[in-house]
Amino acid sequence: MKIKTLVKSLGLGAIAAAALLTAGCNKECDTAGAQQAAAQEQQSFKWKLVTSWPKNFPGLGTAPERFADMVNEMSAGRLTVKVYGAGELVPALQVFDAVSQGTAEMGHSGAYYWKGKTPASQFFTSVPFGLTAQEMHGWIQYGGGQQLWEEVYAPFNILPMPGGNTGVQMGGWFNKEINSVDDLKGLKMRIPGLGGEVLKRAGGTPVTLPGGEIFTSLQTGAIDATEWVGPYNDLAFGLYKVAKHYYYPGWHEPGSMMEFTINKPAFERLPKDLQAIVRVAAQAINQDMLNEYTTRNHAALVELKEKHGVDVRAFPQDVLNKLKVLSDEVVTEVSASDELTKKVYESFKNYREQVKAYHEVSEQAYINARD
Amino acid sequence: MKIKTLVKSLGLGAIAAAALLTAGCNKECDTAGAQQAAAQEQQSFKWKLVTSWPKNFPGLGTAPERFADMVNEMSAGRLTVKVYGAGELVPALQVFDAVSQGTAEMGHSGAYYWKGKTPASQFFTSVPFGLTAQEMHGWIQYGGGQQLWEEVYAPFNILPMPGGNTGVQMGGWFNKEINSVDDLKGLKMRIPGLGGEVLKRAGGTPVTLPGGEIFTSLQTGAIDATEWVGPYNDLAFGLYKVAKHYYYPGWHEPGSMMEFTINKPAFERLPKDLQAIVRVAAQAINQDMLNEYTTRNHAALVELKEKHGVDVRAFPQDVLNKLKVLSDEVVTEVSASDELTKKVYESFKNYREQVKAYHEVSEQAYINARD
Repeated sequence: MKIKTLVKSLGLGAIAAAALLTAGCNKECDTAGAQQAAAQEQQSFKWKLVTSWPKNFPGLGTAPERFADMVNEMSAGRLTVKVYGAGELVPALQVFDAVSQGTAEMGHSGAYYWKGKTPASQFFTSVPFGLTAQEMHGWIQYGGGQQLWEEVYAPFNILPMPGGNTGVQMGGWFNKEINSVDDLKGLKMRIPGLGGEVLKRAGGTPVTLPGGEIFTSLQTGAIDATEWVGPYNDLAFGLYKVAKHYYYPGWHEPGSMMEFTINKPAFERLPKDLQAIVRVAAQAINQDMLNEYTTRNHAALVELKEKHGVDVRAFPQDVLNKLKVLSDEVVTEVSASDELTKKVYESFKNYREQVKAYHEVSEQAYINARD
Repeated sequence: MKIKTLVKSLGLGAIAAAALLTAGCNKECDTAGAQQAAAQEQQSFKWKLVTSWPKNFPGLGTAPERFADMVNEMSAGRLTVKVYGAGELVPALQVFDAVSQGTAEMGHSGAYYWKGKTPASQFFTSVPFGLTAQEMHGWIQYGGGQQLWEEVYAPFNILPMPGGNTGVQMGGWFNKEINSVDDLKGLKMRIPGLGGEVLKRAGGTPVTLPGGEIFTSLQTGAIDATEWVGPYNDLAFGLYKVAKHYYYPGWHEPGSMMEFTINKPAFERLPKDLQAIVRVAAQAINQDMLNEYTTRNHAALVELKEKHGVDVRAFPQDVLNKLKVLSDEVVTEVSASDELTKKVYESFKNYREQVKAYHEVSEQAYINARD
């Protein structure tokens, strides 16, 4: 696409250096007035940001650190944000409560962790066979998702914002081959949330384990399989040392969006410029994390394959088909939890249908033609 | 993926309201000092931003307006950016020169327009069978693309930043069926740039036409076909009224990234906080435009199909294969322009190979499994 001038130039402007307009106090200002103005300009805020990740955990944990840097630079230090790893101030899964109560002004986590408080939250991270990262961000920003998300969190005094995306997660590491739906029967797999529920209905045994216990559990045979994130984080965990096969695609979390949560009264105490700085930094970080994962994941995949000889293989199509049918069942059941969840689901489902039809003739068609 | 607390809580913090630290002048301050401080805080800048799009053109033209709003809000009016449509201050294709010379402090356009000045620029918008939006943003931010881009523009006193993405563009509108490579022979199609060069090698006749002349040229039969952007912009132009078939996928621009260009001396005159505000706003807009296109394109596609009965059809695989071979030829030839272009191409090609391998097991595998 190329656009030519539709309108003729109104004339070349002269070289214009940036105009430096200095609007200080004039001579009539009294000392008190000038001091007050200076004081308002200098008003500063110190925020705590609690996270569900170990401090500086690659990708998930480094994104809120970059957010804090951005906000600090843009506000010239008027809003400083101190980032806490999981357990430093509150445990990983108390981030939502801490922000709701104002213990911390901000949190960085995943919305689906709060399904016990509000089932609708599960639609704001990723659901099995749901939206890709690009689709998710479109729904949130231009498809009505943001407004619904704010409605879901309003009773908790929390304002949510997108906080980064991992992209499509990998299907996981398996110690046995998956050649048919029957191979899922009896499979002990570390897979949390809705994905775990789907596996259960396929005859498997979903297990919830903290990240730090995965390696040993696979090694001892306590579990047969595990999902984690993708090549970048999986390589760091050394999972290739204790599992034979690396399966794809990850059907259970096709574009997991993280979240910033903000205590509403704290946000409202900020002057308008600092509010805008928080919003725009969150928006920038949402793409930043995806860019990082897209890049680091591909480099890590090369290392896994070439250096560690990992056997990367696809789930058979009939297995994916079965998981898809079961996923639709599970997600539809979740949507029946309450009126608000139903409303969120309807918006999500409608967006998914339409964007799917569009991506069939754009992203999907192109990437298949290219590769 | 779910991460449990790895470290126990160090104890629940008390409810902490945001600390309001007021650091004004103390009593020893003299009037002059306070006035000087206030003046520095108030120092303001007025920038002009020239674009290659008609004022407020949907998507391409509204993104720089949103950028200006973000910067204005975040800086509390200390940096105001006035956006000019094509021809209002300088013609569409003089944006680069205007920013280079300082006629305007900023521009919003597409890098491939400047191939006459520096052939390497063509890699920073989109090339035939190149990167998707997500891949492009990964390359720019984490794959070394940004550094190379800065090197390419350095001789022109210009600092480049990503400025939004249209996603995969559509293959275009055709008045005749494309059933084989032979049907490209003699085809008069409005398709600019490298895509046009590829069509030429396939036996077609590429034509360059401004947007405003496309409709009439199709109607009178002066051209047989045209590409434009995608459903959102194509619907607005009414192209469905004068062309029979809407083809996909767009192989020629698979994820066109727009650019902000900034006059370097003007940027360096900004204090650090305003520099950060410009950088972060550009990063946020880069995703913002893609989110808008992803959403509006799918709604527009529904309208084109359901309301206007548009015949949407795929290019035959052998046509795509032929175009791909020719595209590789053309892009490789461009890379031989000079040493710097070769360096950019090597980085781009290397990224494409690796990310392709990763997306085969992630994005591509998932979207094919889902749909």
